[in-house]
Amino acid sequence: MATVRLWTDDDVAQDPAVKAVFDDIRRVRKSDFINNFWRALANDAATLKRTWESLKAIMGGEGALDPLTRELIYIAVSAANGCSYCIHSHTAAAKQKGMTEAQHMHLLAIVGMASETNNLVTAMQVPVDPEFLVGA
Amino acid sequence: MATVRLWTDDDVAQDPAVKAVFDDIRRVRKSDFINNFWRALANDAATLKRTWESLKAIMGGEGALDPLTRELIYIAVSAANGCSYCIHSHTAAAKQKGMTEAQHMHLLAIVGMASETNNLVTAMQVPVDPEFLVGA
Amino acid sequence: MATVRLWTDDDVAQDPAVKAVFDDIRRVRKSDFINNFWRALANDAATLKRTWESLKAIMGGEGALDPLTRELIYIAVSAANGCSYCIHSHTAAAKQKGMTEAQHMHLLAIVGMASETNNLVTAMQVPVDPEFLVGA
Amino acid sequence: MATVRLWTDDDVAQDPAVKAVFDDIRRVRKSDFINNFWRALANDAATLKRTWESLKAIMGGEGALDPLTRELIYIAVSAANGCSYCIHSHTAAAKQKGMTEAQHMHLLAIVGMASETNNLVTAMQVPVDPEFLVGA
Amino acid sequence: MATVRLWTDDDVAQDPAVKAVFDDIRRVRKSDFINNFWRALANDAATLKRTWESLKAIMGGEGALDPLTRELIYIAVSAANGCSYCIHSHTAAAKQKGMTEAQHMHLLAIVGMASETNNLVTAMQVPVDPEFLVGA
Amino acid sequence: MATVRLWTDDDVAQDPAVKAVFDDIRRVRKSDFINNFWRALANDAATLKRTWESLKAIMGGEGALDPLTRELIYIAVSAANGCSYCIHSHTAAAKQKGMTEAQHMHLLAIVGMASETNNLVTAMQVPVDPEFLVGA
Repeated sequence: MATVRLWTDDDVAQDPAVKAVFDDIRRVRKSDFINNFWRALANDAATLKRTWESLKAIMGGEGALDPLTRELIYIAVSAANGCSYCIHSHTAAAKQKGMTEAQHMHLLAIVGMASETNNLVTAMQVPVDPEFLVGA
Repeated sequence: MATVRLWTDDDVAQDPAVKAVFDDIRRVRKSDFINNFWRALANDAATLKRTWESLKAIMGGEGALDPLTRELIYIAVSAANGCSYCIHSHTAAAKQKGMTEAQHMHLLAIVGMASETNNLVTAMQVPVDPEFLVGA
Repeated sequence: MATVRLWTDDDVAQDPAVKAVFDDIRRVRKSDFINNFWRALANDAATLKRTWESLKAIMGGEGALDPLTRELIYIAVSAANGCSYCIHSHTAAAKQKGMTEAQHMHLLAIVGMASETNNLVTAMQVPVDPEFLVGA
Repeated sequence: MATVRLWTDDDVAQDPAVKAVFDDIRRVRKSDFINNFWRALANDAATLKRTWESLKAIMGGEGALDPLTRELIYIAVSAANGCSYCIHSHTAAAKQKGMTEAQHMHLLAIVGMASETNNLVTAMQVPVDPEFLVGA
Repeated sequence: MATVRLWTDDDVAQDPAVKAVFDDIRRVRKSDFINNFWRALANDAATLKRTWESLKAIMGGEGALDPLTRELIYIAVSAANGCSYCIHSHTAAAKQKGMTEAQHMHLLAIVGMASETNNLVTAMQVPVDPEFLVGA
Repeated sequence: MATVRLWTDDDVAQDPAVKAVFDDIRRVRKSDFINNFWRALANDAATLKRTWESLKAIMGGEGALDPLTRELIYIAVSAANGCSYCIHSHTAAAKQKGMTEAQHMHLLAIVGMASETNNLVTAMQVPVDPEFLVGA
């Protein structure tokens, strides 16, 4: 259960600043469905707007990475950070953007492998090779 | 400074099991350079071999994701796990596989954004929408 | 479901060392309610006593930070560490100590922002400015 | 060493979008000093501007929490996330905003205590008490 | 709910590569029960086989550490990484290998204590003593 | 560089409460060497005393786990939490308590393996098997 109130559409209708963001989410996503993350953030109209604008720019706008790759990275970070909600929502988003089951399983294998070597390296305190520092 | 010994090429020459893995790394990577991670893992020939075989399969073999995308995911996980060495080594690997500066900066923006929303969601304990559970 | 037994008041009544701590919790908090954390720790009377004494000193005793600020910091750490139980219990405690909804939402915005910049900094491996090292 | 280039003031002078943000940082902070975080983010003018605008609003603007409390929370999250750079920069910021040594040490005690109970709770998988779910 | 399909024994029967691993798990563990982790990994026969072979070697084979100590370490890492499933499954495995309640509670005390000092050290950015670097 | 002052023996000599703890550390450890962690904690005599008393009881006193096993668990948690200082200091302590190189490498293999499966499980959101919940 959330530690903050999840705003219903009726709640949203009472607050123009929140409503403007919800309207934009529906417009951009071409869907009436608004997931709980935004209904929780609605308790703070400024953070709601800021977060949506950032997400729209980074995940939805023009960019050097294609939309599916962006979602794969989002899932990877969410898994490493242990955010159950985010894993669910971004796995759903990735599937919607065309992630195949084979891509999903390859992503998971990399996430597991990276976590293993991350912890091995940390536990052994391996010093960075000078070769990796050139030209950064 | 590492908590384990970093094997020199002379050390490696004394141990056939370790040497076989080092030879394979050099063959696959078409380079004489062996980075410190493997020189640290050399203290345990079984883990060295297992880790190299896994990495070769997941990062280098056939797969549903292209080589650059794999490295981007690896960097993302390493950043979320706070592994300085791994960030350096896989950023170098990604550049070698063609990562542009624009792609790098886009990756970083996603890593930052995901960590922000991961923590917002966790701090608010947002329940997973039933819509995200369909068909998993 | 817990991996250890949650002690009921009947269980506690059988063990004087555990009972002494539970009595003190009830006395200090002026409430009969004992939450599950302590019922789980009751399996180890020494850790139970040590943890309660530490918590009482750090969160409840005299100190340089006021009681509400302490709870805000506790929530922030619990969110960053991904402890669902702790987020719930300390959000409840913070509300009891007067946390307003506006303060709660401001706290969440900082937690999200800090996690974003933490990960950006880590992913870019930004070196500490000498200016930050002066006089530490 | 950073995995991205740290922009000098000469670099900044060549890029109006980056320069506008640096000018604003100097104006708001009433100081010529710009720390490395911004010099690293300068590689991506959009993320630079977005991050600065967010930080300015959350850490510097009007809000329900006072400026010092905000910095204490920022340090706590940065410690839990293991961001060395951020711990240094925000400890410096907190001192500038009046953090006493006693407040600093109290903060550290809470950060340590919270991490201990976070991990105890997680290791025991303690279920959330229904009492903590009321009225959220 | 999982983000991937959990394979039933009927599903497994259709796929010889997956079936071979499941058969080996049953043979080694001398039990018909296969837990959900393997049923999830079954979506990727290569990762399934690789993970099982690694686990069999590290947790079940000959080695410098006894089987119970291995499980205690596994629980400790799983707690620090916040993996609820892994805490449950490895606590069950440790009990099966003879972990007493007193050992379990001692383990938990260490996990809590280590997390506390880990975060204190990180928050204070304590430099490593030269004495700890000798002879590594 | 630390964010707090590291107390020299001359500083300690001025403060009886701190001196009493330092004297006890030297007495218990039968060594004049005091590592930086305690010199940093000296800034807060209450936290110094509390932390030392806890560590002495958990790591040094009677208990269900032998001294070396305790250190192995401490290293594992410190690696998962990414505490470089703690990995160094507890690897040194473990060696002093008889950890062989083979035990060290086995420990590292488990730490890596656990982190891999922890993240795989989390990324797949595998539900806990009812079998693991029996009798907890």
